[in-house]
Amino acid sequence: MSLLEFLDYSGVAVFAATGALAASRKELDLIGFLFLAAVTGIGGGTLRDLILGQAPVFWVMRPTYVVVCVAMGVLVFFTAHLFESRYRLLVWLDAIGLSAYCVMGAAKGLAATASPTVAIVTGTMTAAFGGILRDILANEPSVLLRPEIYVTAALSGAALFTLSSEMGAPLWLASLAGAILAFGVRGGALAFGWTFPPYKARPGRHPDDVM
Amino acid sequence: MSLLEFLDYSGVAVFAATGALAASRKELDLIGFLFLAAVTGIGGGTLRDLILGQAPVFWVMRPTYVVVCVAMGVLVFFTAHLFESRYRLLVWLDAIGLSAYCVMGAAKGLAATASPTVAIVTGTMTAAFGGILRDILANEPSVLLRPEIYVTAALSGAALFTLSSEMGAPLWLASLAGAILAFGVRGGALAFGWTFPPYKARPGRHPDDVM
Amino acid sequence: MSLLEFLDYSGVAVFAATGALAASRKELDLIGFLFLAAVTGIGGGTLRDLILGQAPVFWVMRPTYVVVCVAMGVLVFFTAHLFESRYRLLVWLDAIGLSAYCVMGAAKGLAATASPTVAIVTGTMTAAFGGILRDILANEPSVLLRPEIYVTAALSGAALFTLSSEMGAPLWLASLAGAILAFGVRGGALAFGWTFPPYKARPGRHPDDVM
Repeated sequence: MSLLEFLDYSGVAVFAATGALAASRKELDLIGFLFLAAVTGIGGGTLRDLILGQAPVFWVMRPTYVVVCVAMGVLVFFTAHLFESRYRLLVWLDAIGLSAYCVMGAAKGLAATASPTVAIVTGTMTAAFGGILRDILANEPSVLLRPEIYVTAALSGAALFTLSSEMGAPLWLASLAGAILAFGVRGGALAFGWTFPPYKARPGRHPDDVM
Repeated sequence: MSLLEFLDYSGVAVFAATGALAASRKELDLIGFLFLAAVTGIGGGTLRDLILGQAPVFWVMRPTYVVVCVAMGVLVFFTAHLFESRYRLLVWLDAIGLSAYCVMGAAKGLAATASPTVAIVTGTMTAAFGGILRDILANEPSVLLRPEIYVTAALSGAALFTLSSEMGAPLWLASLAGAILAFGVRGGALAFGWTFPPYKARPGRHPDDVM
Repeated sequence: MSLLEFLDYSGVAVFAATGALAASRKELDLIGFLFLAAVTGIGGGTLRDLILGQAPVFWVMRPTYVVVCVAMGVLVFFTAHLFESRYRLLVWLDAIGLSAYCVMGAAKGLAATASPTVAIVTGTMTAAFGGILRDILANEPSVLLRPEIYVTAALSGAALFTLSSEMGAPLWLASLAGAILAFGVRGGALAFGWTFPPYKARPGRHPDDVM
């Protein structure tokens, strides 16, 4: 199993776990766990493959990915109560999934189009999409709208992978570097509350001004 | 018209009606009815065809499906006030749509890939997707998060269709059995409040623990 | 650059600006602006291309579209505070995007399938989809659920373009007529509060009756 394949299965598995953890927070039943696990685990990659014109999508070609999601859903159903904070576990697993997925998305985008711009965009979008889908389906506030750095982590990992690949780095090195950078950025944001300066409305004007 | 075609048009038509009923609950105008009817009616099948790599999707090839959605939207606009409870009507029609769609999704998945795993997943996902899309667009709490059994109904119908097809049952029998099982499970959940044991947080710990 | 190409880039650019404006209302950081700008700008066209079976989608073939979205995101990040009401700016730009996108969606649908029904549906759906996606991601009440006319504007523009094309009008004339009609209808709704009669529940019955 190559490093890319390992990243691929890891990304699917940990995103599936975050979907199941979201199900646990909503107190769904076992099938609800499996459904959210599957949708979150394979959602980003499904979007990536559709955009790149690679349909049938990856898990239709290799149903093992679905089996992995189901296994993670069952595992979380029976072990989630063991964790001190399921939300903390969810966001850290989400960080791992984000790191794996941004490299996979960029790698597939680069292989399909040879355009660095496209690779960075598919890497960033598909890494963020699984978590967005999970939050929408579980009716939770989107991770996208929280102040800590999120999309930037995926973007920096996808960009580092793409640029170092373009400059001739071997695939395993570019993949590893991209995943580590993405995890470092997101992990730092989680551990230390890293943020970028947000947009601020003019003083004296409320940001939610209505028409 | 074969039984499969009948199921197909029925699924689209009744999901379209549930979209229009959601529009009536939001007091939209006629065009809002048609839009929600169309998106809900053809949403699940669109996802199914995209995932399986069968684009242009079904209603692009046969626009009659769109005409059916428009007709249901108009019908509901002028008759919804006749019903005692529009919400009750919505969930029962949704149950019929779910039953028809889970068989159609599994049948198309099986025909396209010959993989029972894929067939069960496409059947389940596409049956649930129309209702999820409707609830998101209408900004209603998702049917997915309610305690009564929902995804399980689609899953059991898709699984029975797939397994009996694999064991050599004729198409009409497998279709009928799958649709009846799905409707029975969902109908029982609606009529008698059937639920599975939900995940429960450890005693003394609130399920919405935050980081 | 033909009129259609101009409409295409305009639609992407102004929808991207509305995505960035939604990010400003949520006080996201610069990367949040770029992400919402890109998703809103290219979301409708991505759906259109997927439905019509034209994958890889348009911005994968021509990454300039992504560059346009990024530029709009940066521009809005540094200038949004100059506007009296960012919400008013958002809805008017959204009206321009809607007008451009409904013609482009119908033109691509007509070219791909030669079916007027399909062209009208793809024009309407893809024009509305960018704004819907933006509102879902930014967790704002959907523009779809507001009383003023919205989908109808896209529908009328797509229909006028399609019918005049079918009747032999030159492409530039049909495009211009469709875009102007759509903008006129939506602009009138914004300026004068135009609405259609909404569905009204029976007197004495609350519209949110539950099961």
